[in-house]
Amino acid sequence: MAAAGASASGLILSRPVTFVTGNAKKLEEVRYILGQSIPFNSLKLDLPELQGEPEDISKEKARLAAIQVNGPVLVEDTCLCFNALKGLPGPYIKWFLQKIGHEGLNNLLMAYEDKSAYALCAFSFALGPDAEPVTFLGKTPVEVAPVNSLLPLTGGLQV
Amino acid sequence: MAAAGASASGLILSRPVTFVTGNAKKLEEVRYILGQSIPFNSLKLDLPELQGEPEDISKEKARLAAIQVNGPVLVEDTCLCFNALKGLPGPYIKWFLQKIGHEGLNNLLMAYEDKSAYALCAFSFALGPDAEPVTFLGKTPVEVAPVNSLLPLTGGLQV
Repeated sequence: MAAAGASASGLILSRPVTFVTGNAKKLEEVRYILGQSIPFNSLKLDLPELQGEPEDISKEKARLAAIQVNGPVLVEDTCLCFNALKGLPGPYIKWFLQKIGHEGLNNLLMAYEDKSAYALCAFSFALGPDAEPVTFLGKTPVEVAPVNSLLPLTGGLQV
Repeated sequence: MAAAGASASGLILSRPVTFVTGNAKKLEEVRYILGQSIPFNSLKLDLPELQGEPEDISKEKARLAAIQVNGPVLVEDTCLCFNALKGLPGPYIKWFLQKIGHEGLNNLLMAYEDKSAYALCAFSFALGPDAEPVTFLGKTPVEVAPVNSLLPLTGGLQV
């Protein structure tokens, strides 16, 4: 076993995985999920945010992060997707929240009976700068609370 | 005057400007506007599409293009912005059109009386890979035609 540890599948890591985030909540969640299984540390990197499909955005982010870190990296992005809008705002949720807020998000669905939404978490792992990243997508149904309810938007989803 | 020509302001270009586009219509428009004033050619480049404010996206695109071309470049992006949505979908209009179409775009405004929109053209010019790009923004009010009208969406706006 390498100094940095190995996963159950026999993957040997020469160095701990760098989880790229500047968000303490995300770090806490990843630490909770990974436990002692994979040695990792976290680092805030200034990476370009790309447009595209969530999986493609995530893969490219991992590629760029692995080049900067020159080692194994894990990146994460969360999208908020409305079914009526075929998955949008999706990766652009940050800008929608920032510009039109919670009420504006609800208003986007005014024309639709289907108000359902899901949070899509895209994780990509790259072993290093020359490795093709592997992407894992997690989809959870969420409810976008009405503005006048006491619930926080999507239950405190970290986007 | 350099072989490649010079602008009225005395800017000397060592090489023709590369206008980055793969869109024949955009090339035609730029050729019409620039006329003989600035020598340029066009090139389709595979550049990452970034998220952010239109001006920032444009500047960064020019930076990346100037590195690839290793010379003076001009890049262009068109956003379709709804006033009721504080300028969104803006730079993400391509994805919205692709996923929810013309009718879906109209539906986004269902909650609002203000259906006004504008096209925002962001041009950035960079003299070369080490130069800070200069950005020019052009804003034109447009009308998003109802789906059942005979007018094309935004009068044939190239996005």
